[in-house]
Amino acid sequence: MNVAPSDLGRRTGTVDMVHGGGGRAMTELIRDLFQRHLSNPILDQGHDAALLEASSGRLVVSTDGHVISPLFFPGGDIGSLSVHGTLNDVAMAGARPLCLTAGFILEEGFPLADLERIVMSMAAAASEAGVPVATGDTKVVEKGKGDGVFITTTGLGVVPDGVEISVTRAKPGQAILLSGSIGDHGVAILSKRENLEFETEIVSDSNALHTLVADMIEAVPDIAVLRDPTRGGLAATLNELARAAGVGMHLDESAIPVKGDVAAACELLGLDPLHVANEGKLVCLCEQADADRLLSVMRAHPLGRDAAIIGRVTDDEARLVEMETEIGGLRVVDWLSGEQLPRIC
Amino acid sequence: MNVAPSDLGRRTGTVDMVHGGGGRAMTELIRDLFQRHLSNPILDQGHDAALLEASSGRLVVSTDGHVISPLFFPGGDIGSLSVHGTLNDVAMAGARPLCLTAGFILEEGFPLADLERIVMSMAAAASEAGVPVATGDTKVVEKGKGDGVFITTTGLGVVPDGVEISVTRAKPGQAILLSGSIGDHGVAILSKRENLEFETEIVSDSNALHTLVADMIEAVPDIAVLRDPTRGGLAATLNELARAAGVGMHLDESAIPVKGDVAAACELLGLDPLHVANEGKLVCLCEQADADRLLSVMRAHPLGRDAAIIGRVTDDEARLVEMETEIGGLRVVDWLSGEQLPRIC
Repeated sequence: MNVAPSDLGRRTGTVDMVHGGGGRAMTELIRDLFQRHLSNPILDQGHDAALLEASSGRLVVSTDGHVISPLFFPGGDIGSLSVHGTLNDVAMAGARPLCLTAGFILEEGFPLADLERIVMSMAAAASEAGVPVATGDTKVVEKGKGDGVFITTTGLGVVPDGVEISVTRAKPGQAILLSGSIGDHGVAILSKRENLEFETEIVSDSNALHTLVADMIEAVPDIAVLRDPTRGGLAATLNELARAAGVGMHLDESAIPVKGDVAAACELLGLDPLHVANEGKLVCLCEQADADRLLSVMRAHPLGRDAAIIGRVTDDEARLVEMETEIGGLRVVDWLSGEQLPRIC
Repeated sequence: MNVAPSDLGRRTGTVDMVHGGGGRAMTELIRDLFQRHLSNPILDQGHDAALLEASSGRLVVSTDGHVISPLFFPGGDIGSLSVHGTLNDVAMAGARPLCLTAGFILEEGFPLADLERIVMSMAAAASEAGVPVATGDTKVVEKGKGDGVFITTTGLGVVPDGVEISVTRAKPGQAILLSGSIGDHGVAILSKRENLEFETEIVSDSNALHTLVADMIEAVPDIAVLRDPTRGGLAATLNELARAAGVGMHLDESAIPVKGDVAAACELLGLDPLHVANEGKLVCLCEQADADRLLSVMRAHPLGRDAAIIGRVTDDEARLVEMETEIGGLRVVDWLSGEQLPRIC
């Protein structure tokens, strides 16, 4: 992100319907804003379809729409989130990301200075991750038919030979590892939305996990399952896994990291951290014999410093996720019908 | 499209915020609607990231947001359009499409029966094109923060060896070919929007052009440039090409096919067909020596029946697109600042 903001915002002020029209105004917006900040050899080809280097291997592709509200929040914004969210989906297949694409849907009247801030943040996140935005698209809808900016990103990656990460490999007896504390993202968004103030600002954990995953795979190529507990939180992710794989889960509540201020905020807001979205955490299932080695590799990575073994996969026909509570009881970790917090990503 | 509509619409009526929440309601929507109709071996893996077969070769990737209004129009709907639009971008790189991804942004309150109609139309278009929808995503925004349905599709493809289609290969002297009549899509949308009635219904040309492109490449692997004249119409596409390649264009108005009812509607509506969007047409630049052979291959394909040689690339430092009019004059085909018709795709 070495490029200064353009004078586009000062010149024209807000997004106009002509910016989506396929004519000169759109070409200028793309050149002065998107290409200016996201510039890389692939994007700079300037084609509707980006041509990548020849590649071989098993490809993965993943797509994610981002409609988060508010657009700017502690720890990120819709631009960085749209990079992290999709890179993480690619990484959860064990893949090395190749590139991203970005489709913007802009609302007429949205300040161009805010759009530029978002694009610069997207550029910084992509550059930090080492993954180029290969191509993009811009559409504009009338005022009142959108909500500022929506960004749909798609990620492409290549799975290293020998890696077979799949929900079908979840088996009773495996260890369940979590890369760090839960609930940070959802609580950061809700605090911002509700103008809540805490002693220390709660910051989203939004981050790209592919380098953590690369370290984990290098140490233990046999990892069975990886998932990022986003919408619906850890509870939804584990229930989805249990249902899909036909297994149960047994968790140890005292082992699940929750930051003190996040726990306090959840209590205040009536939320269960297990159901709150994360954007920089992963869950991993692996053989017990590999668990300690994997844990130490995770803890050696900046994004896995608080990693923990939080439970094990069980042989349960009812596919329940159970949790031994801190006071020694056993409760079922259920799966909500919806999400406590809409538009969290 | 062998699957009957589900009872989802009858059961629950409209899109609800919980459908975007990452919980049970979303899982059911995905299973009963998206997976039901779009089912294929890749999508059915049920992962956030779809794993594709090993592939080698030069990849292309393209993304397109679709915000068309109205959602249903003569000749298609946002579902089929979102397949055709992105497949065409991939095809314009000369690539054979591998798969698509689809990101839905739904507005709370949108009828589920309409959503299902759109997904079924998307499934039919993908199946007819022979290209699977590999993975998808669904987000829901509050009523008044969206407009029914937006769909962002991304397409992946592989470029055959020896094919080098790029704007940088546009050179003075080349022939300019057009695959058929212009203006059909834009006029169909506007007629529907304005409730205009003509003697015969004007139908969008929305179609997937990759099999036409495959035939063309097989006959003339040396094709220099391919483009689909969508937003901004033929005029914007040729001006963009001229500017990017540093060449001029000379067109012959009498050679450019425009259907009679489309021409009449354009006159009534004050539109120039050169500026009106198409969704099933392509422009091709090739060496003069190949032009006649390419033309006959195009005409032998159902989507190129009305193909024509419409002009030639010129050596013009001013990069102008000029047109010899039917009455023998010469006029500059300019490039509009925006688009005459917003939300045309």
